[in-house]
Amino acid sequence: MTSVPPPDVIRCAYAELVVTDLAAARWFYVDLLGLVVTAEEPDALYLRAFEEYLHHSLVLRQGETAACARLAYRVRSAAEVDRAEAYYRALGVRVERVPAGATRGIGEAVRIEDPLGFPVEFFFDAEHVERLTQRYDLHGAGAISRLDHFNVVTPDVPAAQRYYEGLGFTVSEDIEDAAGTVYATWMYRKPTVHDIALTGGDGPRMHHIAFATHERSQILHLCDHLGAARRPDMIERGPGRHGVSNAFYLYLRDPDGHRIEIYTHDYYTGDPDNPVVRWDVHDNQRRDWWGNPVVPSWYAEASTVLDLDGTPRALQERTEAREADVTIGADGFSYTRAGEAPREFKLGNQV
Amino acid sequence: MTSVPPPDVIRCAYAELVVTDLAAARWFYVDLLGLVVTAEEPDALYLRAFEEYLHHSLVLRQGETAACARLAYRVRSAAEVDRAEAYYRALGVRVERVPAGATRGIGEAVRIEDPLGFPVEFFFDAEHVERLTQRYDLHGAGAISRLDHFNVVTPDVPAAQRYYEGLGFTVSEDIEDAAGTVYATWMYRKPTVHDIALTGGDGPRMHHIAFATHERSQILHLCDHLGAARRPDMIERGPGRHGVSNAFYLYLRDPDGHRIEIYTHDYYTGDPDNPVVRWDVHDNQRRDWWGNPVVPSWYAEASTVLDLDGTPRALQERTEAREADVTIGADGFSYTRAGEAPREFKLGNQV
Amino acid sequence: MTSVPPPDVIRCAYAELVVTDLAAARWFYVDLLGLVVTAEEPDALYLRAFEEYLHHSLVLRQGETAACARLAYRVRSAAEVDRAEAYYRALGVRVERVPAGATRGIGEAVRIEDPLGFPVEFFFDAEHVERLTQRYDLHGAGAISRLDHFNVVTPDVPAAQRYYEGLGFTVSEDIEDAAGTVYATWMYRKPTVHDIALTGGDGPRMHHIAFATHERSQILHLCDHLGAARRPDMIERGPGRHGVSNAFYLYLRDPDGHRIEIYTHDYYTGDPDNPVVRWDVHDNQRRDWWGNPVVPSWYAEASTVLDLDGTPRALQERTEAREADVTIGADGFSYTRAGEAPREFKLGNQV
Amino acid sequence: MTSVPPPDVIRCAYAELVVTDLAAARWFYVDLLGLVVTAEEPDALYLRAFEEYLHHSLVLRQGETAACARLAYRVRSAAEVDRAEAYYRALGVRVERVPAGATRGIGEAVRIEDPLGFPVEFFFDAEHVERLTQRYDLHGAGAISRLDHFNVVTPDVPAAQRYYEGLGFTVSEDIEDAAGTVYATWMYRKPTVHDIALTGGDGPRMHHIAFATHERSQILHLCDHLGAARRPDMIERGPGRHGVSNAFYLYLRDPDGHRIEIYTHDYYTGDPDNPVVRWDVHDNQRRDWWGNPVVPSWYAEASTVLDLDGTPRALQERTEAREADVTIGADGFSYTRAGEAPREFKLGNQV
Repeated sequence: MTSVPPPDVIRCAYAELVVTDLAAARWFYVDLLGLVVTAEEPDALYLRAFEEYLHHSLVLRQGETAACARLAYRVRSAAEVDRAEAYYRALGVRVERVPAGATRGIGEAVRIEDPLGFPVEFFFDAEHVERLTQRYDLHGAGAISRLDHFNVVTPDVPAAQRYYEGLGFTVSEDIEDAAGTVYATWMYRKPTVHDIALTGGDGPRMHHIAFATHERSQILHLCDHLGAARRPDMIERGPGRHGVSNAFYLYLRDPDGHRIEIYTHDYYTGDPDNPVVRWDVHDNQRRDWWGNPVVPSWYAEASTVLDLDGTPRALQERTEAREADVTIGADGFSYTRAGEAPREFKLGNQV
Repeated sequence: MTSVPPPDVIRCAYAELVVTDLAAARWFYVDLLGLVVTAEEPDALYLRAFEEYLHHSLVLRQGETAACARLAYRVRSAAEVDRAEAYYRALGVRVERVPAGATRGIGEAVRIEDPLGFPVEFFFDAEHVERLTQRYDLHGAGAISRLDHFNVVTPDVPAAQRYYEGLGFTVSEDIEDAAGTVYATWMYRKPTVHDIALTGGDGPRMHHIAFATHERSQILHLCDHLGAARRPDMIERGPGRHGVSNAFYLYLRDPDGHRIEIYTHDYYTGDPDNPVVRWDVHDNQRRDWWGNPVVPSWYAEASTVLDLDGTPRALQERTEAREADVTIGADGFSYTRAGEAPREFKLGNQV
Repeated sequence: MTSVPPPDVIRCAYAELVVTDLAAARWFYVDLLGLVVTAEEPDALYLRAFEEYLHHSLVLRQGETAACARLAYRVRSAAEVDRAEAYYRALGVRVERVPAGATRGIGEAVRIEDPLGFPVEFFFDAEHVERLTQRYDLHGAGAISRLDHFNVVTPDVPAAQRYYEGLGFTVSEDIEDAAGTVYATWMYRKPTVHDIALTGGDGPRMHHIAFATHERSQILHLCDHLGAARRPDMIERGPGRHGVSNAFYLYLRDPDGHRIEIYTHDYYTGDPDNPVVRWDVHDNQRRDWWGNPVVPSWYAEASTVLDLDGTPRALQERTEAREADVTIGADGFSYTRAGEAPREFKLGNQV
Repeated sequence: MTSVPPPDVIRCAYAELVVTDLAAARWFYVDLLGLVVTAEEPDALYLRAFEEYLHHSLVLRQGETAACARLAYRVRSAAEVDRAEAYYRALGVRVERVPAGATRGIGEAVRIEDPLGFPVEFFFDAEHVERLTQRYDLHGAGAISRLDHFNVVTPDVPAAQRYYEGLGFTVSEDIEDAAGTVYATWMYRKPTVHDIALTGGDGPRMHHIAFATHERSQILHLCDHLGAARRPDMIERGPGRHGVSNAFYLYLRDPDGHRIEIYTHDYYTGDPDNPVVRWDVHDNQRRDWWGNPVVPSWYAEASTVLDLDGTPRALQERTEAREADVTIGADGFSYTRAGEAPREFKLGNQV
């Protein structure tokens, strides 16, 4: 920690993913999800959703190995970029100042390797492009409105939470057990349930990036479209209703296995006394309000993250209990009603 | 078969279920599903959906053992009830004529034990009650419109299909394999995908009864409501989109384990050349267009049916291959794209 | 009337419209409504909706003057085409037998000038094309499922109703007044609220053709799309909820002024004792359940119809009271609650 | 203006309305809208929406004359209440400090008569009650999530905008003409399109209070419910899609004529460079994206507001052009496509 004040972060703003087959990724992000192409280069795509007016909220870059190259937050002014630099220099982590255009469409920025091991950027200036909110002639049946949040895997959730609290984020919900082990925490700057979720596990890895729609029908259409495309195996989990956040969700895996969530129906958190919701890790409705099982891959798999040189980060193991281990089993480690034995519905497909 | 002409069946019309705890059943069917109580007796409930004007589409009767006591079809006129009697007498099955009121609200009827072993009734006259289509003051967020279909388990699907063709039903879709084994068939009188589905398995058993809503949001609300009631384990499977029928579906289990489907978005089948859709049993999208796994209980469990004396019917084993056996396995007996190895997503919760 | 039995009509099946600018019409029907082009000729488009497998449900043909050239019903078999011919010859109206292909994609047919003055065709054979029910990759946000009904203007509604009853149609709903004047009647063969609606007015004219969607969101998207296209003036009336039929509706006017309804949420009518719903013409909720005013153009305007030679039909005036005259006025001829003075909301834009 | 810093306002928080028949109001707000009763007194109701955890967002108080008694904003801390007091004392308007409980459930507060003539309260402390986000067992088909915004009528919109900018609010959208007349402005603190809209007209009056839902289906249900209750004349305008804000909307009038909007689908405005959208007053899509007419009552009528003594405020006339005068007329003062003559659809019901 440091006494230098943190930058004033507005919200999560964009991610850069390395993909191994840009054409395949284009099908997924443009043809299926309907993201708008702001700019296209031989080895990169700059994409945004219909209500976004900054240059992009997602960059896809062709590379040898699938990875997450950068998670970017927007700060409130150019001066806050300087404060970000000072803050991270005081923290003693690696810091790089990059000029405008280091990422196309983005102004001068500070890139860091954060204490959790993630490559993170802070920027203010960005190129404005047309906001397509009312261009309904372009909206498909699964139209996406905006980037909503990042979710990252990190071994020590309370430590990560303290780091993000230092950066001015607030907890909205978490998953704990009676012994005080924290399995995951949701934190926000903009007044939604989260800009960042911290998921306990071997890290640093990127668990997923989430985009928001207005209604559930748009999420359901993406499933139908994948069925029509004979690609339903890109649906990893859902659709369903989260316990945490109350959001209606769908998890997809892009052609490189990067996990993308489509998300709607969370709630306003902008008051300073917004109640924190704590879920018992054994509550079967915490991750799916309808009690549908979380598939093991959702717990086990996540994207490699790169350092500022583009080298994959080594993983640090989680030493505390893992959510999958304490909740999934034929003998039922979770409950629907505390104190009752589980009923054996919804056991999945490999008895 | 017989040369006596069959009765002119309009549609599936009502089912009578024996439940062991009428109060618990009332919670499920009235408080959760929102079915309308037409009449209530100490040991029976007569229920209908909002767009139905006949006395009931579901009877719940208190009894010792959960079972399906009767599946009833409506015929086009009182004379057709007589034709039903003649038809089944010619078929040589057990036939009983019952007077008006034998089932409250239902006129004179013929009850039979059909060649597949099911207790079936044919009636025309029924008491009319208020159709509540536009009583939106009474419609909850999960409002149900009408009964849609029955689904029964029977060992020999082609034989059952021939029996129902004799009764004037038409096939809309089926599930087969390359060797010609038929695993399930959907058949209709009213111009929807089905009034009856024939599911291969040990039978006679009742697999489920389905009710229709107008939109998917009504089905999703039922899931949310069950979550709020801490009863999500009543959700057995779904929500999802069927391959067969294209319907958006949800399978619930009532407190006695009777399976109830909520169903919407199927299609018009009323032209005589309506194309039959044949699905490969190994096609992973046949039962869920999104490729989500069918839970084993959905294949394995079904309700006991009674004979006309109220005695449970003995089961006859299916001798042909069973769908669950040929499609579910950790080594993947189904495909998403024919010829490709399966990817291992969505494996369920008991690795 | 005649003692010759009528043909067994299945349902309304297709319409042929003359349009004066095929490119403009293509924008409306294909780019906006998303109808599928089965075939295209220099001066004609053959269109269908996503769940239709016959060659087309709408033909657009370039011509000098906008008109409705034909309303076609499908009959149950080729033999029924012969029965149609015999029936109309006995009725003494003009009858023409046309060979297969007289309309592209349609088999041998009988064309008549019906007693109400409309050009009507009866056919059975038609070319089958791919049913695109599950081609969600092609479905836009406003996807249309199928043709639902025709609505025609005719001076004497009871006479027209008798004619259609002779043809085997059944009344589902009507609008009357206390003196017995009938203003409009809805009649069906397939078990929905209607295949044909008879609207009182100077006729013969075609009031509208209606297509069905699964959900309301698809109808709302069409409005949003028209807004984005700066063509909201193509929205004539709605969206809203009908009193009659309970359907959620939207009325559009194509570039030639042909009125197209998009329609969903009506109800099953297939039982022989389906209750007829009679609406008081002064009931303000009969045409819009939410009490929103019917715009005058909706009452006043309708498409010219052609005779079998392609000549516009002269109009016969309605002699009975007209719905617009008895219901619309600053002094309130309609009521929301019988016996109460109207409140002056929703008066429209030209006080 | 003043050099004293303004309080840090979080968002619009609650309104207090005087109603003349509390039982009638209860039907509207509780039975129809489904708002939750936090507390009930013989002459007052304290209501909240399902996702709100403060004591109430709406107070209904029985009185002689219908009026708006108070609009309340929440500030970020107790200290900000003091800053509010200092700020308004410096502005020279009437200021009253009230103790906790002056309004049930609300802590110590500052009440002022703002420079525009409105009775406004600033508070921080409030009683927390159960947030019912996931109590889907209680959610009806028209479930409301939270209060969204206030809309007030004031003669001089630019002056009012300057006042609210002084209080820290930001403009998201406005309606202007080429001569620079401003007809209405939307301003926010929380990152939605608005917490307050300033509508040009004789003021001070309260135009409406708006509540948010998650989806459009919830708004449509309220219309259906009003139809079933034979109260569709409570629907003043809509449902429709706004041009301004992009929100899907419905305007109702409560039994006293207070206008309530139900609102969904607006967009995120939380970045400091959020683009301001300026609409031409003659653009026919500015207030309804679908071009449906704004009813005259919507422009003409609004609720009386009280001063801190409970006395109705006298009105000051708007001296600039009025939106209704420059946009509504049989000869069409608005356009759909600039430069084209209007087409005469959608003219309403009193030709």
